[in-house]
Amino acid sequence: MASESGKLWGGRFVGAVDPVMEKFNSSIAYDRALWEVDVQGSKAYSRGLQKAGLLTKEEMDQILHALDKVAEEWAQGTFKVNPSDEDIHTANERRLKELIGETAGKLHTGRSRNDQVVTDLRLWMRQDCSRLSALLWELIRTMVDRAEAEHDVLFPGYTHLQRAQPIRWSHWILSGAIAGNPLGVDRELLQAELNFGAITLNSMDATSERDFVAEFLFWASLCMTHLSRMAEDLILYGTKEFSFVQLSDAYSTGSSLMPQKKNPDSLELIRSKAGRVFGRCAGLLMTLKGLPSTYNKDLQEDKEAVFEVSDTMSAVLQVATGVISTLQIHRENMARALSPDMLATDLAYYLVRKGMPFRQAHEASGRAVFLAETKGVALNQLSLKELQTISPLFSGDVSRVWDYGHSVEQYTTLGGTARSSVDWQIGQVRALLRAQRA
Amino acid sequence: MASESGKLWGGRFVGAVDPVMEKFNSSIAYDRALWEVDVQGSKAYSRGLQKAGLLTKEEMDQILHALDKVAEEWAQGTFKVNPSDEDIHTANERRLKELIGETAGKLHTGRSRNDQVVTDLRLWMRQDCSRLSALLWELIRTMVDRAEAEHDVLFPGYTHLQRAQPIRWSHWILSGAIAGNPLGVDRELLQAELNFGAITLNSMDATSERDFVAEFLFWASLCMTHLSRMAEDLILYGTKEFSFVQLSDAYSTGSSLMPQKKNPDSLELIRSKAGRVFGRCAGLLMTLKGLPSTYNKDLQEDKEAVFEVSDTMSAVLQVATGVISTLQIHRENMARALSPDMLATDLAYYLVRKGMPFRQAHEASGRAVFLAETKGVALNQLSLKELQTISPLFSGDVSRVWDYGHSVEQYTTLGGTARSSVDWQIGQVRALLRAQRA
Amino acid sequence: MASESGKLWGGRFVGAVDPVMEKFNSSIAYDRALWEVDVQGSKAYSRGLQKAGLLTKEEMDQILHALDKVAEEWAQGTFKVNPSDEDIHTANERRLKELIGETAGKLHTGRSRNDQVVTDLRLWMRQDCSRLSALLWELIRTMVDRAEAEHDVLFPGYTHLQRAQPIRWSHWILSGAIAGNPLGVDRELLQAELNFGAITLNSMDATSERDFVAEFLFWASLCMTHLSRMAEDLILYGTKEFSFVQLSDAYSTGSSLMPQKKNPDSLELIRSKAGRVFGRCAGLLMTLKGLPSTYNKDLQEDKEAVFEVSDTMSAVLQVATGVISTLQIHRENMARALSPDMLATDLAYYLVRKGMPFRQAHEASGRAVFLAETKGVALNQLSLKELQTISPLFSGDVSRVWDYGHSVEQYTTLGGTARSSVDWQIGQVRALLRAQRA
Amino acid sequence: MASESGKLWGGRFVGAVDPVMEKFNSSIAYDRALWEVDVQGSKAYSRGLQKAGLLTKEEMDQILHALDKVAEEWAQGTFKVNPSDEDIHTANERRLKELIGETAGKLHTGRSRNDQVVTDLRLWMRQDCSRLSALLWELIRTMVDRAEAEHDVLFPGYTHLQRAQPIRWSHWILSGAIAGNPLGVDRELLQAELNFGAITLNSMDATSERDFVAEFLFWASLCMTHLSRMAEDLILYGTKEFSFVQLSDAYSTGSSLMPQKKNPDSLELIRSKAGRVFGRCAGLLMTLKGLPSTYNKDLQEDKEAVFEVSDTMSAVLQVATGVISTLQIHRENMARALSPDMLATDLAYYLVRKGMPFRQAHEASGRAVFLAETKGVALNQLSLKELQTISPLFSGDVSRVWDYGHSVEQYTTLGGTARSSVDWQIGQVRALLRAQRA
Repeated sequence: MASESGKLWGGRFVGAVDPVMEKFNSSIAYDRALWEVDVQGSKAYSRGLQKAGLLTKEEMDQILHALDKVAEEWAQGTFKVNPSDEDIHTANERRLKELIGETAGKLHTGRSRNDQVVTDLRLWMRQDCSRLSALLWELIRTMVDRAEAEHDVLFPGYTHLQRAQPIRWSHWILSGAIAGNPLGVDRELLQAELNFGAITLNSMDATSERDFVAEFLFWASLCMTHLSRMAEDLILYGTKEFSFVQLSDAYSTGSSLMPQKKNPDSLELIRSKAGRVFGRCAGLLMTLKGLPSTYNKDLQEDKEAVFEVSDTMSAVLQVATGVISTLQIHRENMARALSPDMLATDLAYYLVRKGMPFRQAHEASGRAVFLAETKGVALNQLSLKELQTISPLFSGDVSRVWDYGHSVEQYTTLGGTARSSVDWQIGQVRALLRAQRA
Repeated sequence: MASESGKLWGGRFVGAVDPVMEKFNSSIAYDRALWEVDVQGSKAYSRGLQKAGLLTKEEMDQILHALDKVAEEWAQGTFKVNPSDEDIHTANERRLKELIGETAGKLHTGRSRNDQVVTDLRLWMRQDCSRLSALLWELIRTMVDRAEAEHDVLFPGYTHLQRAQPIRWSHWILSGAIAGNPLGVDRELLQAELNFGAITLNSMDATSERDFVAEFLFWASLCMTHLSRMAEDLILYGTKEFSFVQLSDAYSTGSSLMPQKKNPDSLELIRSKAGRVFGRCAGLLMTLKGLPSTYNKDLQEDKEAVFEVSDTMSAVLQVATGVISTLQIHRENMARALSPDMLATDLAYYLVRKGMPFRQAHEASGRAVFLAETKGVALNQLSLKELQTISPLFSGDVSRVWDYGHSVEQYTTLGGTARSSVDWQIGQVRALLRAQRA
Repeated sequence: MASESGKLWGGRFVGAVDPVMEKFNSSIAYDRALWEVDVQGSKAYSRGLQKAGLLTKEEMDQILHALDKVAEEWAQGTFKVNPSDEDIHTANERRLKELIGETAGKLHTGRSRNDQVVTDLRLWMRQDCSRLSALLWELIRTMVDRAEAEHDVLFPGYTHLQRAQPIRWSHWILSGAIAGNPLGVDRELLQAELNFGAITLNSMDATSERDFVAEFLFWASLCMTHLSRMAEDLILYGTKEFSFVQLSDAYSTGSSLMPQKKNPDSLELIRSKAGRVFGRCAGLLMTLKGLPSTYNKDLQEDKEAVFEVSDTMSAVLQVATGVISTLQIHRENMARALSPDMLATDLAYYLVRKGMPFRQAHEASGRAVFLAETKGVALNQLSLKELQTISPLFSGDVSRVWDYGHSVEQYTTLGGTARSSVDWQIGQVRALLRAQRA
Repeated sequence: MASESGKLWGGRFVGAVDPVMEKFNSSIAYDRALWEVDVQGSKAYSRGLQKAGLLTKEEMDQILHALDKVAEEWAQGTFKVNPSDEDIHTANERRLKELIGETAGKLHTGRSRNDQVVTDLRLWMRQDCSRLSALLWELIRTMVDRAEAEHDVLFPGYTHLQRAQPIRWSHWILSGAIAGNPLGVDRELLQAELNFGAITLNSMDATSERDFVAEFLFWASLCMTHLSRMAEDLILYGTKEFSFVQLSDAYSTGSSLMPQKKNPDSLELIRSKAGRVFGRCAGLLMTLKGLPSTYNKDLQEDKEAVFEVSDTMSAVLQVATGVISTLQIHRENMARALSPDMLATDLAYYLVRKGMPFRQAHEASGRAVFLAETKGVALNQLSLKELQTISPLFSGDVSRVWDYGHSVEQYTTLGGTARSSVDWQIGQVRALLRAQRA
């Protein structure tokens, strides 16, 4: 019936194939990145077919040899992609057939393209996770080197961006280095999933489950969240108002309008990429939501997400390493930013050591801060007499409180900001680096 | 001091410029798409400078002429991008200087690159929204044409994917066409924002606010959500189990393993893109969150998001138009899927018309359904006597209930599934199409 | 067959109703907020039924009267929700039946619960958008009042968080006030959708489309993104290092550990809520993705999202208004933060006015900045002779450049930071406020 | 100066504390869920203080005893929260002081509230992960029980929602059970993080890092994505068109309008919650993005997210268990849905076994499918002669291909759908269940 011929309603397109659809459907534009693992996977599969008696030894050898030739063409940039090659898998198989004829048709016996797609992506990600991991460890190593070299520098610790207590600069650096560390754990998880030692338990689940992709994207999102926070700190520390650090020229750019400016573009880009990477994670989960089980073409969204996120992570980790390794610190400004009111907690502890319950001591110290503010003097400028109007427990030895170096040295518990504690942290991270190398 | 020279901590990179950073910072790889609007904006700006007395008439003419030359080079593919061209704006300005020397340096007097970036993107999006809008209207036109041609076909309406009541096939098509419609409103909003008739009220806000980008990405996300739902319906209707529709070969693909299969790849890809597009929207909002006011390099994320989403929408709208225009429907299967139990609501209304309150009638009809199920017969196979055991209000005229055509014709209110109502909807959408063309 | 009886596989639950399911399915815990609009909608519907001859005048009056009684019970807190009331609609209908018996059963003739749900939510949102809008306008009014009172205060404008050029404090305030403004447009869009003047074009689309919810959630997300950026600025301006502003005690909290601290909790909470609100928007879009058309229970997610976001917006807007209206500014610190290098652009403009192309002038000014840095003096401390080594165009009148007040007064274009321009912006926002009130 | 007193610009609020801010800032409304772990943590901390010599043995005993009393009050519902109790920690400390006076003030010596908040949440999540894990294992156990009981049922496997090959019903069930399994791994990760055996390496990182929350929310999102896919399958299988399964009444609801309907509300709610849970994950990551290091009040968003997601997961897992354990399957419909064209791959394998390369065999089988379609007969109705026109390799033994039971029995590789393979999968999951119990 005419009305059902399907071409009556003015569709833009008439003919056997809609070229927009062909392009929409095709993944060769981005999945050519998989050429190497696709050949690798096919070589392994042809060995399996021979073992199962589905290929003769001669056929297998012919295939293996031709696959090496295909790989060589990719490596040398001479592989020609045809317009009709839908994806890397059909491209490689088409070429194989050109090389060895009908035997090529035996290669994928009992293997669906969906199997091939998911295996190739797993293989590629195994390589890529190693590469990203090496870049991350390089960043961590740079941070710990720097923490060691500069552990004598004190500056304000902040909470709520309000000056809180004096801390070591190295303590801040290590807080970032350690924040990167969870990756180690996640990577093991991913590698465990990708090592193919374990067998996929269920064939339906095997082609449609993309947990390894989702977890990679989430690891990247979480890692970028940490790096966005480190970048935020350094952007603040680099403002005129803080003036704690100065980016090297290699990681700054000038203004097209204002000649005096040097902008921390590198750090702003790092901060911004947290959004992009998370967006890919969000997009994939939304794509997966409510999909019927087994393979649906929707799953094709996985690869571009992985490739783009991998590229972004790679650039971010290298730039972050460069920024940290070339950053200048302004020791004098850091020292100048320490102020006696940051020792108010120490003042409370002084009273605690004299026997006052902490909550009372906290209140007494707060009254001292208020008194100093009212008088318009620094907290350490209050006279002993004035302090004694607040508590009779104050005596001459209170003067020892007003020493920033002494203050930080109190925090000797593991994870604290005392020299010994910071050295311990450095040791811990170095141990991780060594373990990683081994 | 050595420890502050910034090169001591093993950074991978030594030298004036880190090539990874240069690439990370550069946007020329994707913002070359802006060449046309960048020239257009610069031409307008040079006219403004002449009016303000900052360019002479001769200088302006020289600049305008050279900008036309730049545009010509882009159009003909002969423009050479230098490795040091950071973005399209610096590339065009560099070329301008090569062409006319120092006068080129006057072009951006009092204009920051941030102004240029945001103006160019607004100009580009104005063009692009028109293009996307045309594609969307083409889809809507195809749907309404088809709705008109096939308004005599009845099939089951579903809620919760359970068969509910008979409806016209055209009613379903129009529910999709109308869902696309909100775009009209949003586009006006965007165009209003982008028409530059309105003046940006505040210069700080002007360079840092990206509402027009966020709203575009959200419009696209919402539009894709609608299209993902339409795709889901058609995928279901195309299963062997439903067999209501059949995709044309142009929009299906075969299986590499199973010779009998024809997969609805086009629809699955449309469904999947909802995730990708939303991911871009989510990513941009996360990037914007908590940014200090005015320009920060983080804002550079806007362009790739817009370009990618625009490409995706463009492909999706064209493929959807192709799918709808070439889709075959199986009238007999649609008719066969109508079953008497779908008229249970009509049976209740029959009782309502005889004076029974609706809730009682609903219950009575439910009892009839149960009775039929128990007896293993269709609802319309219950004898009058059996119905009368449920309510004495049933009489011989109940037989008129069992007519699907009669059933749908009851829903004559605007928006309903009666022929007149569907025709009215077609008329409404056609009026929108006409208004759009004008 | 035993294996199909469905109770053999150790399910935790045996019996007619699983209490966990009942609670999972029930929405009464949160949708009771709809009681008023549910009564309102049912009153309107009963009038429609009477017009259509499906209710007598007496029945309608009886229903209207009883619905008023139901509303009264809700208003006085005496309405008793039964455990079996699944949602607000069944609760109200159950109560109606208790009050007037069988006639109650006629109320929902030809009206599905899905219709009721979506109509109620639209009615509720219409009210709520008005309420939120009033709160937003109150915030904008506070900002513009403040901008007017303090338009003589100058402080640094920042881009990339680097000091850029001197601007008026009012200019910053207005950049925030104006960022709020797009809401006006969106609200009109929402109200247009919610005014019921327009008829929903298609009955299938009517119950399943949630664009009005998605758009509300996105408006809120975008609005919160703006507020998160304003909060970020104020948090920075309130650090010891910037010391431009001080939060009133009403919007700060102390530290449990550090007596000297006053934390900007109000602003941090505002900043944080951008994530929560956007999360709801993301969640709803993911829920909608790929749903079959018409009603599915998944749509029940809409209400909690709307209610929570409405509560959050309401608190945020009020707290932001409080913060802005009670914020202290430190004029001296703001003035002190202005430095001659921020006039480097003005120095370039000086040369432009003497005839030098802008790019050359920018470079010349950059060399002056470098020279001053090298000599360790402020930019305005360079002697005329020194400047003339850079360009012979410098003469005695260059001294006029070093006046911050003069600098800001140059930016008289609409949207600029000159007094006249800021006053114009204030006028524009006041006009919006007046238009809004009318 | 008057204009800086901060109360001149019409703020709605005048006075020492803005009640909206107080409520906005307060977390007691939801963090009371932490009462038990807060007491537990404080008891441990007071023991630590005694060891460090900061509490005497008597003071410690007094505190421990009073904390038990506080816990008892919470357990019995007699604890009175004061309006001024900002959070659970201040509420408990306030009560402690009422009970034992000043000694209470010693409890939090050297411990910030931020420490307390993060420790409490970690403790609570350790408990809660165990609870959720038990519910998940219950679901898995139900699935594997069912898979075992029904492993003789065959039905169509689908890819792209197109019928693909016959599979065992148990194979489908196990694909879901196994999809749940990754949780096991993640939970170990979480528990490793929460077991407090490991020491937090850096004190700055300790209070501001929320990886354990983000990972929990992501685990939940990924788990819900799997469950949304299982729900989607079951919703489809429950449609009239598929009719493979029937939900028990306990997990269905009727329609308010259409008496014949039974809607799969339970499954639709499960599907919908994927959006809600992911929305919380997205919201938290956005909140974290770009935060300065250490504690900021923004981090307060963590708890409501965790509590809501935990509640949702708990309900979803129980309802899913109920649905699976009471679901009826329609064996005859499942059998009837198997059709000869689903054996087209087997037909290709038949030719492969006769020596034809797979790609040729695939093509030959495709031609057979086409021939059958053209002739309007089922694939197995083609005569041997007809088959031989396609390939001379066909002979009489081809008839053995047309046996569904024989077809599934070919897939004996691990993870396949052969009886032995499905039994192996059951064994694997049972082993996990046993390992879990141990």
